[in-house]
Amino acid sequence: MLYFECDYDTGAHEKILKRLAETNMEPLAGYGCDRYCESAREKIRRACACPEAKVFFLAGGTQTNAVVIRTLLKPYEGVVAASTGHIGVHEAGAVEFTGHKVLELPQHEGKILAEELAQYIENFFEDENHEHMVFPGMVYLSHPTEYGTLYTKEELKKISEVCRNYQIPLYLDGARLGYGLAAEETDVTLPVLAEYCDAFYIGGTKVGALCGEAVVFPRRAPKYFMTMAKQHGAMMAKGRLLGIQFDVLFTDGLYMEISRHAIRMAMLMKEGMKKRGCRFLLDSPTNQQFLVLENGEMEKLKEKVVFSFWEKVDDSHTAVRFATSWATQERDVRELLELF
Amino acid sequence: MLYFECDYDTGAHEKILKRLAETNMEPLAGYGCDRYCESAREKIRRACACPEAKVFFLAGGTQTNAVVIRTLLKPYEGVVAASTGHIGVHEAGAVEFTGHKVLELPQHEGKILAEELAQYIENFFEDENHEHMVFPGMVYLSHPTEYGTLYTKEELKKISEVCRNYQIPLYLDGARLGYGLAAEETDVTLPVLAEYCDAFYIGGTKVGALCGEAVVFPRRAPKYFMTMAKQHGAMMAKGRLLGIQFDVLFTDGLYMEISRHAIRMAMLMKEGMKKRGCRFLLDSPTNQQFLVLENGEMEKLKEKVVFSFWEKVDDSHTAVRFATSWATQERDVRELLELF
Amino acid sequence: MLYFECDYDTGAHEKILKRLAETNMEPLAGYGCDRYCESAREKIRRACACPEAKVFFLAGGTQTNAVVIRTLLKPYEGVVAASTGHIGVHEAGAVEFTGHKVLELPQHEGKILAEELAQYIENFFEDENHEHMVFPGMVYLSHPTEYGTLYTKEELKKISEVCRNYQIPLYLDGARLGYGLAAEETDVTLPVLAEYCDAFYIGGTKVGALCGEAVVFPRRAPKYFMTMAKQHGAMMAKGRLLGIQFDVLFTDGLYMEISRHAIRMAMLMKEGMKKRGCRFLLDSPTNQQFLVLENGEMEKLKEKVVFSFWEKVDDSHTAVRFATSWATQERDVRELLELF
Amino acid sequence: MLYFECDYDTGAHEKILKRLAETNMEPLAGYGCDRYCESAREKIRRACACPEAKVFFLAGGTQTNAVVIRTLLKPYEGVVAASTGHIGVHEAGAVEFTGHKVLELPQHEGKILAEELAQYIENFFEDENHEHMVFPGMVYLSHPTEYGTLYTKEELKKISEVCRNYQIPLYLDGARLGYGLAAEETDVTLPVLAEYCDAFYIGGTKVGALCGEAVVFPRRAPKYFMTMAKQHGAMMAKGRLLGIQFDVLFTDGLYMEISRHAIRMAMLMKEGMKKRGCRFLLDSPTNQQFLVLENGEMEKLKEKVVFSFWEKVDDSHTAVRFATSWATQERDVRELLELF
Repeated sequence: MLYFECDYDTGAHEKILKRLAETNMEPLAGYGCDRYCESAREKIRRACACPEAKVFFLAGGTQTNAVVIRTLLKPYEGVVAASTGHIGVHEAGAVEFTGHKVLELPQHEGKILAEELAQYIENFFEDENHEHMVFPGMVYLSHPTEYGTLYTKEELKKISEVCRNYQIPLYLDGARLGYGLAAEETDVTLPVLAEYCDAFYIGGTKVGALCGEAVVFPRRAPKYFMTMAKQHGAMMAKGRLLGIQFDVLFTDGLYMEISRHAIRMAMLMKEGMKKRGCRFLLDSPTNQQFLVLENGEMEKLKEKVVFSFWEKVDDSHTAVRFATSWATQERDVRELLELF
Repeated sequence: MLYFECDYDTGAHEKILKRLAETNMEPLAGYGCDRYCESAREKIRRACACPEAKVFFLAGGTQTNAVVIRTLLKPYEGVVAASTGHIGVHEAGAVEFTGHKVLELPQHEGKILAEELAQYIENFFEDENHEHMVFPGMVYLSHPTEYGTLYTKEELKKISEVCRNYQIPLYLDGARLGYGLAAEETDVTLPVLAEYCDAFYIGGTKVGALCGEAVVFPRRAPKYFMTMAKQHGAMMAKGRLLGIQFDVLFTDGLYMEISRHAIRMAMLMKEGMKKRGCRFLLDSPTNQQFLVLENGEMEKLKEKVVFSFWEKVDDSHTAVRFATSWATQERDVRELLELF
Repeated sequence: MLYFECDYDTGAHEKILKRLAETNMEPLAGYGCDRYCESAREKIRRACACPEAKVFFLAGGTQTNAVVIRTLLKPYEGVVAASTGHIGVHEAGAVEFTGHKVLELPQHEGKILAEELAQYIENFFEDENHEHMVFPGMVYLSHPTEYGTLYTKEELKKISEVCRNYQIPLYLDGARLGYGLAAEETDVTLPVLAEYCDAFYIGGTKVGALCGEAVVFPRRAPKYFMTMAKQHGAMMAKGRLLGIQFDVLFTDGLYMEISRHAIRMAMLMKEGMKKRGCRFLLDSPTNQQFLVLENGEMEKLKEKVVFSFWEKVDDSHTAVRFATSWATQERDVRELLELF
Repeated sequence: MLYFECDYDTGAHEKILKRLAETNMEPLAGYGCDRYCESAREKIRRACACPEAKVFFLAGGTQTNAVVIRTLLKPYEGVVAASTGHIGVHEAGAVEFTGHKVLELPQHEGKILAEELAQYIENFFEDENHEHMVFPGMVYLSHPTEYGTLYTKEELKKISEVCRNYQIPLYLDGARLGYGLAAEETDVTLPVLAEYCDAFYIGGTKVGALCGEAVVFPRRAPKYFMTMAKQHGAMMAKGRLLGIQFDVLFTDGLYMEISRHAIRMAMLMKEGMKKRGCRFLLDSPTNQQFLVLENGEMEKLKEKVVFSFWEKVDDSHTAVRFATSWATQERDVRELLELF
């Protein structure tokens, strides 16, 4: 069987496991106050070219989104997101559970447009009834998006300008950030994110770690962020598990190295599929590739490959996802291509 | 330096690390649907002598408490707990964040009494204004308690009877459950818990795992428990991390074996301290021992040992905690005793 | 100045004020337990031809929606509503504040279609990832809708069938229910609502009362509904204020009588405007009429009439609302028509 | 039958009903933007000698407490209150529903002590684990308390100093404020409250109105308070109902006049009971008087008087409450006294 279902179906990069074993018996302070967390924070600050950044480690993506969003919003505010945004669709209502509405903007291959955002906020404040409505209190982007697409630096800059114009924080969900930063033609880097965002997270779970996301506040962190995390059940007693993993990922460029590998595998797969005449749902430069398959063909493929259902296209066609990761083997990609 | 600060200052039992490494590259389904989670569930069901039990894995204790409590309560209900209960004191308001009140009963060395519980519930329903008040909707126990003390089987039985009499679920927080089950004179076992509780969790984080707690519903699990966990940000993408750890802990009795080790170390420490004339805050049969130290003595000790501040006793005395764990070395205990 | 801004700009029907004065010094039990509340409940049950109905009185519409929705939903569920539904747009996030998501369906002149609802629910349960999503847990309709339009009996029946097929309660927001029931060609009556809905409310605030909405559960009320109301701050100490008002409104058909008056005034206005060539945003059979005005014309009109901004149509046109109510005077309508 | 059950068993002062009738057909803006609300605000500002105060009208006490508390707290904070405080006992968990914990201090005849408050806050910040705990974020007082007792100006000053020392807002629940201000020996006035509190409310429901509480922020109101109220379902469409009532209550000193009447009636009752040898639970200077009755005597009394059960004292005695109000008739008090 070949596995292209997702980017979290294997364990962790071997260097992480090795380091966990080496440090295993060292007595360390709990709750993220150990030396490995501190070292990882420092390395991330350096990678972001942002020596003043505050960095926190949480266990998973939904948790991170909920804690950051609740922490940045005032109670009468909601978070603006693309209609396909992960927080609005696949997090079981985690944002609403914190008491806040997800305010939807139209999505364009998973992205929002600065112009539509500006128009939305302007319309809101011009509406005579806006004090009866949920205020737009922050903007949520995912990068890569749920469709594997990427914002350009220019697009981020424009969205950031809209946000700053209205003093609304910009937050970027980087569950798969490595695969975005390693894409071939992107001009978005960690320092770019640190410049334009008020908060973002660097995904570990899907990029080589067993679990863990690193939240970065480039300028100013919310007061008592860790108490908020605790209140959400998001503070790990053995914070070392997160610190050590990110310390390894940000040593000698490992995070980017393994991300680039996933992109190479994805591009090999994409080019091969293109040559074989596959139909794509859209053009993704990252580790997730979306194909439109005829249903019979899809069923046959399922016998040999594990991939993800994405959405029904029409009665006889289905969009499916093939994902690579830091762990994908080139020979598996080549075997996969033989099946088309 | 000697480390007796807590039971979560080292990593994981070596067998866990070994198994994580062995299984690392196996592609596995996410979100707790993999074979290791299933195997761990089956082993836990067997250990509980409860073939019908539903078992779920979550990452940490506060998270587990919040998800279970919210899932079992109706919106007009609160959870009854000892005034020293972890949920009421040291979880940053995680239960209140879910919209529910913690209803406090007096604590007796960390425990509640069945009689006082019955009286509380009876008074509630007899109060003519009770529809203006928060209904007692479940009972929370911690075992061992925050003071290291244990309920007896008889005490659990009585509390359980009160709960069943009023159709109120009984939930037991087993963050340190291993150290309770392994205590020398306890008659409480996993099957006993499965008989008397409606839900409980078997703590992993403090008993040999990197993270993870196993929630057991002996009879009937709440509908869509995993969706609720997801909504709380408590569903791990790489559920394997939890499943593999509990699979190892429940193979060949490892969980009890390492728990008994911690108890042996705690009793060695306790007896030694007793002989040396130390004053105890109370009599704990588990891995946490609470001493009352004169402040000058305490400061001197701090130069050589890491232990926890517990509470101020009077102007010249402080209660402190020394904890052993699965990882405690006998020679460290002996060195510690030399200091008294 | 002429006032057509809304249907809550005057006080209460004079019979209500009279009855409040007559009963003013009677000592009565609080919190809705007095004889007038009981009498009003009985009259409403009779008007609904539903002797088993449970009836509760709350103060206002947003409050009622929040309490009913939270009470009927399980924590992993959301409420399905038209994208223009009041709960999703103009209640400042009151539903999300209770922890629940509003799941939007396309609106058709303010209404949802049974077919689209069925498709939505079916798609949800067929989605392999639905346990990561918010479950559709109830359906919210407003009748009249925010655009003054009405469901037919057949439409309600079909929506109700979809709901029952999936065991999802159907809830109808009747803030302006009187004006719907009194519309000229409707076949929807209170007994029809009692048959097809699991909960609905009969609006008082906009139909002759100072405040107050009567929630009707035709079959089975949620347990401890009043405790839930109290928790939301929605239980009035002087419940008599609500009971007496509804008792008057449901004595000798006053509720329908004053509603019919508002409809007569609205139809007089509508026909007159039509004759004068006004352009309507849509065809409303109820007390709210939506005109599309050229902006210059709109500004001029504002000097003599108070009406509501509704939405921008294009750069030179605006949709505005003219509302009649139980209190509208025929001579005011005739004066208004002179202005077109 | 004689009625001394509570202070909300009759309607409204006749001047209120009269004014509601006089203004009934005036078209007025909704949601508290009408001229009567504005006039009432201005009169309240004058009565408080606080021209900068922001004043808002809400419908009831529990609602007011929930909105104000949620609005003033940060998400990691709780509200400190006496263990007998209304918010902690008789509001069905309304504060917890907003996600916040009620942090209990010992009560002294319903009051908290400045010294104990200071100690509590100091201990909190000295606790090394305080970032795992709920922060004390505001202080809640009720005045009169649930036991009818009153703070002195000096006590309020001291509590206020503690609050300001830690930058924690002080909030006073004045559900029965009139009866406190009108007590014979009190030195607390509205300007005193405006000086020492950051927020307080002037109760209308129990002091002559049909419903309504006036929230006063002497210095600075939270941003978008009305949007928060709307989110809680606490914004009345016909805000006039609240504005007109408070406008009447604060015209020509009516609020104090009717409050003084209730106190005269209460003192007449208290002195008479004393003379007849009744045993009091405590010494209350306000409109609520608490007697300890032998159970047989209590049952006999119930045949002729309606009063409230308060609490069980011992197996043969019960504490009960007799309340006067603005509407109490002197002849009823005299008749009542005949029964002892």
